[in-house]
Formats: sequence, C-alpha cells, structure tokens
Amino acid sequence: MNMVPIIEKKKLGQALTAEEIDFFVNGAATGSVPDYQLAALLMAIRLNGMNREETKLLTLAMTHSGDVVDLDAIPGIPVDKHSTGGVGDTTTLVLAPLVAACGVPVAKMSGRGLGHTGGTLDKLESISGFSVNLSEEDFLAQVKTVGVAVIGQTANLAPADKTLYALRDVTSTVDSLPLIASSIVSKKLASGAKGIVLDVKTGAGALMQTTEDSIALAQTMVRIGCDAGRNMVALVTDMGEPLGSHVGNALEVKEAIDMLAGRTQGPLLTVALELGARMLVLGGAAKDVPEGKAKMEEALRSGAGLAKLKEMIVAQGGDPACCDDVSALPQAPVVLPCTATGEGYVAAMDTVGLGNAAQQMGAGRRTKEDVIDPAVGFVMNVRIGDRVTEGDLLATVHAKDEQSAQEAIDAIRRCIVLSSEPVSPCKLIHAFVNSESVERL
Amino acid sequence: MNMVPIIEKKKLGQALTAEEIDFFVNGAATGSVPDYQLAALLMAIRLNGMNREETKLLTLAMTHSGDVVDLDAIPGIPVDKHSTGGVGDTTTLVLAPLVAACGVPVAKMSGRGLGHTGGTLDKLESISGFSVNLSEEDFLAQVKTVGVAVIGQTANLAPADKTLYALRDVTSTVDSLPLIASSIVSKKLASGAKGIVLDVKTGAGALMQTTEDSIALAQTMVRIGCDAGRNMVALVTDMGEPLGSHVGNALEVKEAIDMLAGRTQGPLLTVALELGARMLVLGGAAKDVPEGKAKMEEALRSGAGLAKLKEMIVAQGGDPACCDDVSALPQAPVVLPCTATGEGYVAAMDTVGLGNAAQQMGAGRRTKEDVIDPAVGFVMNVRIGDRVTEGDLLATVHAKDEQSAQEAIDAIRRCIVLSSEPVSPCKLIHAFVNSESVERL
Repeated sequence: MNMVPIIEKKKLGQALTAEEIDFFVNGAATGSVPDYQLAALLMAIRLNGMNREETKLLTLAMTHSGDVVDLDAIPGIPVDKHSTGGVGDTTTLVLAPLVAACGVPVAKMSGRGLGHTGGTLDKLESISGFSVNLSEEDFLAQVKTVGVAVIGQTANLAPADKTLYALRDVTSTVDSLPLIASSIVSKKLASGAKGIVLDVKTGAGALMQTTEDSIALAQTMVRIGCDAGRNMVALVTDMGEPLGSHVGNALEVKEAIDMLAGRTQGPLLTVALELGARMLVLGGAAKDVPEGKAKMEEALRSGAGLAKLKEMIVAQGGDPACCDDVSALPQAPVVLPCTATGEGYVAAMDTVGLGNAAQQMGAGRRTKEDVIDPAVGFVMNVRIGDRVTEGDLLATVHAKDEQSAQEAIDAIRRCIVLSSEPVSPCKLIHAFVNSESVERL
Repeated sequence: MNMVPIIEKKKLGQALTAEEIDFFVNGAATGSVPDYQLAALLMAIRLNGMNREETKLLTLAMTHSGDVVDLDAIPGIPVDKHSTGGVGDTTTLVLAPLVAACGVPVAKMSGRGLGHTGGTLDKLESISGFSVNLSEEDFLAQVKTVGVAVIGQTANLAPADKTLYALRDVTSTVDSLPLIASSIVSKKLASGAKGIVLDVKTGAGALMQTTEDSIALAQTMVRIGCDAGRNMVALVTDMGEPLGSHVGNALEVKEAIDMLAGRTQGPLLTVALELGARMLVLGGAAKDVPEGKAKMEEALRSGAGLAKLKEMIVAQGGDPACCDDVSALPQAPVVLPCTATGEGYVAAMDTVGLGNAAQQMGAGRRTKEDVIDPAVGFVMNVRIGDRVTEGDLLATVHAKDEQSAQEAIDAIRRCIVLSSEPVSPCKLIHAFVNSESVERL
C-alpha cells in the first residue's frame, strides 16, 4: 500500500477504508510514513472531514497502535473520566476519591498541563513525594486494593496519536472534530476502563467555544466509545470562566481537599458530583443519576472521600499531611491582592488569558523542558454576574516574587470584563449526551 | 514570522500577503521551513485555492528564490517556448531552428522527461556528442553567435520550485492550478526570455484534460507572465493522441529532421509552425501571425531551418551527420510491426498509456537513476478518425529485444480504442490566449 492514493482520496472528499486508515496510523506509530505525507493527509482531513465510520476506524487504529491496558483482573466495573481541558478544572481530585469510596474502581491515566489548561499529574505532584509513574502491575494492584489510582500514561499508549498530535500542533490541524475525537477516545480506550464519563468543556476557555460544537464533539466521542464496546457518556460543562476558584497546582489540590473536608462548595463541587454520579451509574453502584448523586453526597458528608484521597496519596508514595492541614502544601513567598480598578458587573472572563497568566507565573510549561512551580497561581474572588466596585478584591495572587505578582495582577485585571448592565451567572451544565440522545439542560 | 498562522490563514480560505508568501517560499528554498509544514500548506492551497494576486506573488517569489538569467547582452528580443508536456511532442526541435533562422534569438532552457511525457534534453542527447550542460556564459555566447541554444536548467534556477515540486509529487497536490502555473512560469521568468509562447496541452494525455481547464491554466500563466513584465501568450493544443507519429528519443529527433528537410508533414509541423509564428511576432520579426507563419514556411522551404539545427548541434558538441542521414541516429536492434487485431474507426487513444509503454521500453525513466535507451520507442501509423481492418499496421516498434517489442505491441493495441461508428479527427489547436482575451479556434 502507498500513501499518495490515500491522500488523494481524502483530498477528493472520499471516505477511507479500514485498510487505508490502518496503513497511515501504523505508519505514524512506526515512522514508516514520512511526516510530510501525514501532514498533507491531516490537512485534507481537516478540510474535507471524516464520516462516523472513518472516525471510529481511525480511533480504533490509534488505540491498537500501542499497548492496550487490560483491567479484567479488577473486580467490578472500572471507570474513568476525561476532561477536554479547562482552567481551575480539578474535578478529578474531587470526584475520584468519592467514586472509589462508593465502591466503584477508578483506574485513571491522566495528562500533563497543555497550553493554558492545567494537568492532573502536575497538580498531584505538588503533594510531597507523590509519584505518578507506576508500572502497569502496580497500577492494577493499587486499583484492586485502594480502589483508585491516578497515573501518567504509559510510554506506549496510542503512539500513533503522539506523532499525529505533535504534527497537528505545528500544521494548524488541531481544530478538526474527527481528529480531536479520535485523539481523546483512542487514549481512553487504550487505558482500559469499561465505563467512561467525558467532561466536554464549552465556552471561551475551551477547545470548542459554542455549545453546539461541544455537543457535536461529545456525540462523536460517545458514539465511538459505545461502538467500541465501552459504556461512554458525556456532560457538556461550562468553561466561560475558571470552574474552581483556585488556579495553580498546589492551590487546586488545596481547593479539592477543602471540598472533600466539607469546608467549601461551589461550581467545581457541583460539576464533580454530576460527573461522579454518572460514573457510579456506569460502574453499577447506582441505578440512576439521583441515586448516584445521593451516594456521592453521602461519601462527602461522611468524610469517606477525604479518607480515600489520603489512602491514594499514601499508596502512591505521597505525604498525606496536606489532607489534615493544607498548609503542608507548597506555599508561594509573595501573596498579594488583585483589586478592581473600576466598577460594574463581571460580564465575561478571558479564560484563556487567565490560564496563560498562571502559566506565565510558572504554574504551566511554555516548552516541554520548563519546570513547574507548584506553589504559584491565584484564587479568584469573583464569578461572572458578580457586582464589583473599585478596590474590591478580584483575586489573590500567589507568586514567586513581587514582579511576577504584579504582572499577574495586571493580567487578571485585563481578563475580567466589567459591564454597567446586570449579567446573569453562567449556566454550569449545558447538556448530557449518551449514545442514543442529547439532553439539553 | 511563523509558519503556523500562514497555514491557518490558507486553511480558513484567506488570501496570503506578499510577506507570508515570501516567507514560505524562502523557507522552501533554504530548507528553513520543515517539509511537513510546507506539505500542510500545499494541501490547503490545493483545496482552498489562491487568487490571481497570490498566484502572481507566489510565482515571483519562486522566480527570485534562485538565480535569474540576464539576457540583456543578447541583441534583439530573445524568445522561449514551453510545453506543459505531451507524448510525441517534439515541437521544440522543429520550431527553435526555424525561429532562429528567421532572426529571432531562441534562448531555451528545457527539462527532462517526466512520467509518461518525453523531455527535450533526453531527445537531444540521442545525438552523438551533444551536450546540454553549458555554462551560462557559453549559453549566452551561443545564442549571440548561432541564434539558438537549448540547454538544461542551471542548478540554482527556482530552487523553491524544486522543493515544492518534489513535495507535491508525494502529497497528491500536483493538480492545483496556482501551483502548476507558478511552477511553470517561475522557471520561465528565471530563464530570462522576454517573449514566451506557452503550449498548454489538453486532453487525455495532458495535465489538464478538459479544454476549459486548459484555457484557465493558460490564462493564469499568461496573466502572471505579463504582470511580471514579459510578453507571454499561449496556445491550447490537443493531446488526445500523440502529436507527432514518432515516440522515443532518437525517433523524435529523426521526425524533426525529416520535417526540417521537407520530407514529412503532419500535425506536429502544423503546431510547430503556429507556435513559431507567435514567437516571431513576440520577437519583433513579424507584424502578425500570418506574416510569422509565412516566414516560418519560407525558412522551412529554403532549408535554413535544417542548416540552423546543424549549426546548433555543432555548437553544442554534437555530430551533425544525422541531419544529412538520419540513420546516423541510434538504431534499435529489434523492429517489429504492431498490427490491428480487430476492425473499426480509431475512436480514442490512451495517450498516457502510450507514453508509459515507451517509458517501459526504456525511452523514459521510472526513477531518477534509470538510464535512457535513446534508440527505443515506436512510430504510430494511425491517428484518431482513421479506419483500420484486421492486420493493418497500427505502429512499428523499435525495441531493445523481442520481449520488450512484444510487450510494447500488446500495450499499444490496448491503448487504441476502435469503434464501429465513424469518428472525426481531433481538432489540433483549441484556443489562443493572450493577456487580454481568449480566442477559441
């Protein structure tokens, strides 16, 4: 088989066969197809699309381009959850211990922060001693004994996606529904969970900025997952502003612990409970979403969630002291208020700008080689719809030095748009998508 | 400047600026932009197109990516001619000596055979001793003294086109009007001629298979050439069957000599005279096409054209004996007839198939490393519209051995489509295109 006729078919808008898709995906994984031919094909896919069958075949080919984790040894129905990426989006740290406390095994492989969005692995590594690099054997053993483990992807997980993702990034072919869906779902399928809840973000800070595009992405992914024999559903949730109030690695761990300890609530908890309730349904621990939510709330109230987080931290070599005393987490030397310079209603937030401001402070990487500062970031004090007057606290920045703090203060101010007219708060959850239907909420 | 936003603009169907086009063309010439980004951009250009201004800017950027030959030292108006490539298409060998004999300097840089089409350089090299590798200095000197020189492109002629052409070939992005036009015209502009006649082939054996597509390509190229300050016109001529009856390197040289000696006529001569007449007009030696044609015919009748070809062969180190005795050209050891196995009217020819059959015999290269056999090929004995009965001679094959001859005979038979209904001969010249108008003929 030869790449040129495959590129030509897609250039002419024709559907590729399973053999053709396997050929180029295998070529991407092994390096036998040169980057320039993959790049031309990716652009043809971006511009001419892929139908449902092609997208499924692409996803399965990427899944099988490397190792597929076998979770059959784990009793029960192991579940996983994936977010398309957001700012202040630390639902995993809240829901994973709660779901595990309800008896459903959580076997989660997570990613690093990317661009303006944070990564669960980076957050967990702000806990002293915590290791995200477990062997597959230790990962399975921990899910069996503790009920929950969150680790980095193994090296050979969907290697074709690694090649294609790196190429997409430098050839302006990221924004393609079949390419996004196959990239996400192939890694989830290779991670082995039987029940998977997707959290598809929508709005200014998300990959897909309109609700309709986000629903389309959710539907595409859920169909592929179900066609591949997994039980997959999705929530479309808001990313028009940071989900939690805390942005930054240790700060987000602190917020999760505060929530599990019952000290704080808010949109992050609401979304975590909604996602977790659906994980309990997929995991067979609840007959429906209301029952799932009730069980999640009970695990929260009883402290079983926080206890499970502690157990997981210990199992992965971390110091659990932070669960009892959040001041055990890394602390930034400079903490300064960011106050409003005008007055009005918070009408919008440049969520990407806020994520980039945190990255600039050292909470994220600009290049692969950058080392993350776990302590830095900021805590938002306002949400869309809030009324502020001059001097009101917008956020508290936690910085490595005065200059970095001042830059962050200026950036945060620029990211908050005030209006003289009252503005409604954002709707948190836009839709629920399963293989059969879309329920707009 | 960065490639990703340039690719993104074209992906979104927006027009690129001069700076953006210069950036990627320069990157292609120097290797500073990786192949995979060029490949993604080429596919975006193939699918979203380029407007007239962009195509002109692309052509000029490619022209100036390397050396531009300066023909100012040559008295008069040096002219050139370019064919988009055909089978049995040896007009250069017929018209160049005739035009030079009429006093217009012909400074021609030619190419090698490509795919199913032959190349002027390969044909000339079948003349014993003939060299196509002249220095620029010797090239100019010969055009001054002899009035005509045909050489290979200098190494640094439009290097950006070399990179982009090689990439297009392996990424299914050859069939793009702006990419075809800029590739051809950039090399013509860099070759320095002031007056340029394009021979845009149309039909089954051509790059563009419909008359309308061929006219569009001709218009695009002529506009760019004129916008760049050159006098450029185009003829759209037929490639529904081989133009000359001879296909193969020495065989085509023989046909050209036979024509210049007045021994044969036919469609090849007709097209050569039409193209040459327009070169005389651009070169200032004729006030209009009829006068140009009359001068070409006079140079043919007087033998001045054949004398000029001899002079050129001598100047380029070749043995001119073939001009007096065509048997001095390389002869194939096996000459066999290809006869008809059925009867009817010749309704169509698979011209690409015929070109490939000649290539298969050794007249062309399958890879860059292949060595051409100058003697092999075939002489067609029928044209579209002819009536044949079983056993009639379709062609005479000139092969290196019996097996190759038999394969060529089978291939030629497959390429000739017979019909029981009478068929009209092909129209030879479909249109004349200048910067202001299209004249359909």
